[in-house]
Amino acid sequence: MNGELMSAEIREQPAVLARILCEGGSTIGSVARAIAARHPRFVLFAARGTSDHAALYAKYLVETRLGLPAGLVSPSTTTVYGARPDMRDVLFIAVSQSGSSPDLIEPLQAARAGGAITLAITNTAGSPLASAAEYSLDVLAGLEQAVAATKTYTAELLTLYLLVMRLAGQDDESAHTLPERAERQLAREDEVARLAARYRFADQLVVTARGYNYATARETALKLMETAYLVAHAFSAADLLHGPVAMIDRGFPVLAIVPSGGGGQAVVPVIAELRERAADVCVIGNAEAVRAGGRGLELVEAESEELSPLLAILPLQQLAWHLARERGQDPDAPRGLRKVTLTR
Amino acid sequence: MNGELMSAEIREQPAVLARILCEGGSTIGSVARAIAARHPRFVLFAARGTSDHAALYAKYLVETRLGLPAGLVSPSTTTVYGARPDMRDVLFIAVSQSGSSPDLIEPLQAARAGGAITLAITNTAGSPLASAAEYSLDVLAGLEQAVAATKTYTAELLTLYLLVMRLAGQDDESAHTLPERAERQLAREDEVARLAARYRFADQLVVTARGYNYATARETALKLMETAYLVAHAFSAADLLHGPVAMIDRGFPVLAIVPSGGGGQAVVPVIAELRERAADVCVIGNAEAVRAGGRGLELVEAESEELSPLLAILPLQQLAWHLARERGQDPDAPRGLRKVTLTR
Repeated sequence: MNGELMSAEIREQPAVLARILCEGGSTIGSVARAIAARHPRFVLFAARGTSDHAALYAKYLVETRLGLPAGLVSPSTTTVYGARPDMRDVLFIAVSQSGSSPDLIEPLQAARAGGAITLAITNTAGSPLASAAEYSLDVLAGLEQAVAATKTYTAELLTLYLLVMRLAGQDDESAHTLPERAERQLAREDEVARLAARYRFADQLVVTARGYNYATARETALKLMETAYLVAHAFSAADLLHGPVAMIDRGFPVLAIVPSGGGGQAVVPVIAELRERAADVCVIGNAEAVRAGGRGLELVEAESEELSPLLAILPLQQLAWHLARERGQDPDAPRGLRKVTLTR
Repeated sequence: MNGELMSAEIREQPAVLARILCEGGSTIGSVARAIAARHPRFVLFAARGTSDHAALYAKYLVETRLGLPAGLVSPSTTTVYGARPDMRDVLFIAVSQSGSSPDLIEPLQAARAGGAITLAITNTAGSPLASAAEYSLDVLAGLEQAVAATKTYTAELLTLYLLVMRLAGQDDESAHTLPERAERQLAREDEVARLAARYRFADQLVVTARGYNYATARETALKLMETAYLVAHAFSAADLLHGPVAMIDRGFPVLAIVPSGGGGQAVVPVIAELRERAADVCVIGNAEAVRAGGRGLELVEAESEELSPLLAILPLQQLAWHLARERGQDPDAPRGLRKVTLTR
């Protein structure tokens, strides 16, 4: 194999998004109605790896759209230390491609026993995680074969977006142009391939963003680590200034994700600070930010910033794939990884 | 300067811990009683940089000791997107050395307006953050002059530990041996200096741990980034297996934090997996783990694993200091950093 699986699954994403919008909406709607009727007051997410980044995105959405406080679960408090928190009024959402990792199943069971409303979001209907939860949603991405998750990530993002919008009783019409926009974004792969060549000999890299796309930065770093074996480090643009920026000097490669909107705008002054250090900054962003930066990839615009993570990740998945190939690696066979990782 | 400030503040830690135990307890107790009487049901933490790692530690404690669900706040949902979540029954704790960053003050004000019980934990009595909160605690570390925070970190850890134990109505006697243990730990600096020399030419490094000491791993990575300019990446030992481990090959430097207890034990199988990849693993841990590893630093034992983060960080602060010096840098003058970072 030479990355054909991952490449095919990257290209499949517009169809997956269209399938969720067409076939998934009514189930998401009924689950949302059932949950909303129970008036959760606090939302917790449990997830690992790529799914953890989808959960991070959803945490922002819950705070901004649903107006509820939210947090990400540390599974070890349950699996290692046996914590049994009081979970009444908590909506506990576990997100997992396979739905089989013990360190999600056990915390979900503990949360349910503690009184939480539990929801499993997986790509595997009938998985142990889905069976353990009171409610479950299938993200409808179809079998994912590549070790590096791509289509299940965007499928989780969209499922979570639709869920939160339904829980909030808000209109999700603007999501319906995503498949067509995603198609246009993916069609610009040649530019991405040219950019990937530049990083052939990079040893390390920082990815930065703010707000909804902090999840994009985290997921980009993970894709680069697991397929291209690049030591890639994601920081929120604010956290970067609280210390880590000291390590960035002349020529240090930085990817800055700058979509239109407040979160993207908040990255702009940080880019200026990185430029003062003569870092090698590449902007993945809107036309204006790319033009100002001189080097970068222009993103297809989303209808709103909160939907931009579903498009911004696409060229970055392609970047990881091309860079892995440039470096002589098979993106479908990351060394030492299995498709399903079972941790406790 | 040649790192004298940071070095002096590292050495000051046993005295700071003793001061908190001696002078801080009654204030912490009365704040805890006032908060407990209002029966918070969820706990949120807001912090940046080093203080964020203290908050991460406290999040684990809240789940295990207090039995309440907890989360870490993403300040941008307030400062960038204007979210105003319903914060009734939420205990909102902001942790900050300076107590002056707008992206902590604004979320705290929003939380208070939304009905939260608010508590500021700072090293600066009368700071804007402390003034904005209903309750405040001074961590009593005294003026911290070095840019890289050390004594305020352990002071925050201890203050948060005592607070959670008081909130939970549990005995905190075992904390009282910390100053003496910390003194013994710091006295082993020669070993740390020898270890630091080994990393003179390392370009990057991974730090891993699980449970309470995940905070130690994060704080170690930050200290290495901001003083030694090493690209240091912290992972929970479970997250490491969900993808990033692919980048780790022959000779890749890894610090594994393995104190006695369940969290440390959970790192052991991950070390075996790293060894299979011929990674260069150094164990910072209990005698048995160090002996099994062949290379490492033995930690002074804590009374319990939940107190081990207060001791485990000490040799790792020393490591960052010595490595910075080995690399010809002044630990007191990290390039481009100020003591107080103001982000929004």
